[in-house]
Amino acid sequence: MFMLARLVPTEAEMESLPIARAFTLLEPGPAVLVTTNDGRRDNAMTISWTMVMDFSPTFALTTGPWNYSYAALRDTRECVISVPTVDMIDTVVGVGTCSGTDTDKFEKFGLTRVKARHVRAPLIRECVANVECRVVDIVERHNILVMEGIAAYFDSAREEKRTVHAVGDGTFIVDGRRIDRREMMRSKLPDGL
Amino acid sequence: MFMLARLVPTEAEMESLPIARAFTLLEPGPAVLVTTNDGRRDNAMTISWTMVMDFSPTFALTTGPWNYSYAALRDTRECVISVPTVDMIDTVVGVGTCSGTDTDKFEKFGLTRVKARHVRAPLIRECVANVECRVVDIVERHNILVMEGIAAYFDSAREEKRTVHAVGDGTFIVDGRRIDRREMMRSKLPDGL
Repeated sequence: MFMLARLVPTEAEMESLPIARAFTLLEPGPAVLVTTNDGRRDNAMTISWTMVMDFSPTFALTTGPWNYSYAALRDTRECVISVPTVDMIDTVVGVGTCSGTDTDKFEKFGLTRVKARHVRAPLIRECVANVECRVVDIVERHNILVMEGIAAYFDSAREEKRTVHAVGDGTFIVDGRRIDRREMMRSKLPDGL
Repeated sequence: MFMLARLVPTEAEMESLPIARAFTLLEPGPAVLVTTNDGRRDNAMTISWTMVMDFSPTFALTTGPWNYSYAALRDTRECVISVPTVDMIDTVVGVGTCSGTDTDKFEKFGLTRVKARHVRAPLIRECVANVECRVVDIVERHNILVMEGIAAYFDSAREEKRTVHAVGDGTFIVDGRRIDRREMMRSKLPDGL
């Protein structure tokens, strides 16, 4: 039931984003879905413990052996970080409250798997953004995984682009308005961003 | 000009929050101010590269020698993480675009320093939340500092509580509405949260 044949081809479905901009997808702190493929099947988990680490596609996330996805991350050193939107809130919570040990989460939540270019873990068609990542280090004493983004996609045609931020107590904050301080911050931003 | 005598006493000014709830202040991903005291004077920096690491008051942030505050963090192993609100957006950007090497940021941005209970770094009166922290580890190869929160404060009387999320490109997303999924998540949350 996790057949590769069900993967939608990348080219038809996904709009690339320059990898240098990938950090802007995660820095605001959205709850994300992280997909993996352990060589046999695909899985997804919900993670809100993420961190941008640089003005580059380097990210950290916290997970460990208590998550079923951890073994796949540790062994394959690959994943996709997918950014869901507010209309997917029940998918975000649902994916985070069941386990890949006994559930095909793509089937259960009607998620469309799209073939990634560089990793075996699938992109998620329904998400507004996807970032293919390699695990470059695992800081075991803190359960921190350090990721390097290698390809990014953004669905600019998608109408709903607001993400959700987990508070940690079972509530989520939806994106509100955007404030522009590009001019004030010019000296601190990478060229061409 | 950084006299301790100017610190406002804690008891009169700050409402405590149970430390077990401190992670809920940071998990949504707000841009924060981090204060330090290097033994001579107070400083503050803006950080949006933070991560909750557990259902406990354990947090990570990314910084390094390129930030003036880093030496104080490394040497004193203490700081305060303060959470500003949207009405403080120009303070958030301003603190992040000048340096403690030549600027008294508390003076420049009109921030009121309140004496912390356990650390020498000051709380910031104007922020909606403050967390006193100890640096428990520095993962040097990734410039990750691991913090343990030891006391937390939340200003429930403050009218404006919306935080801002740095996108990384000079824009910021303001908190919107809140969605409640406590019941769906009950099995995953610590008791009593």
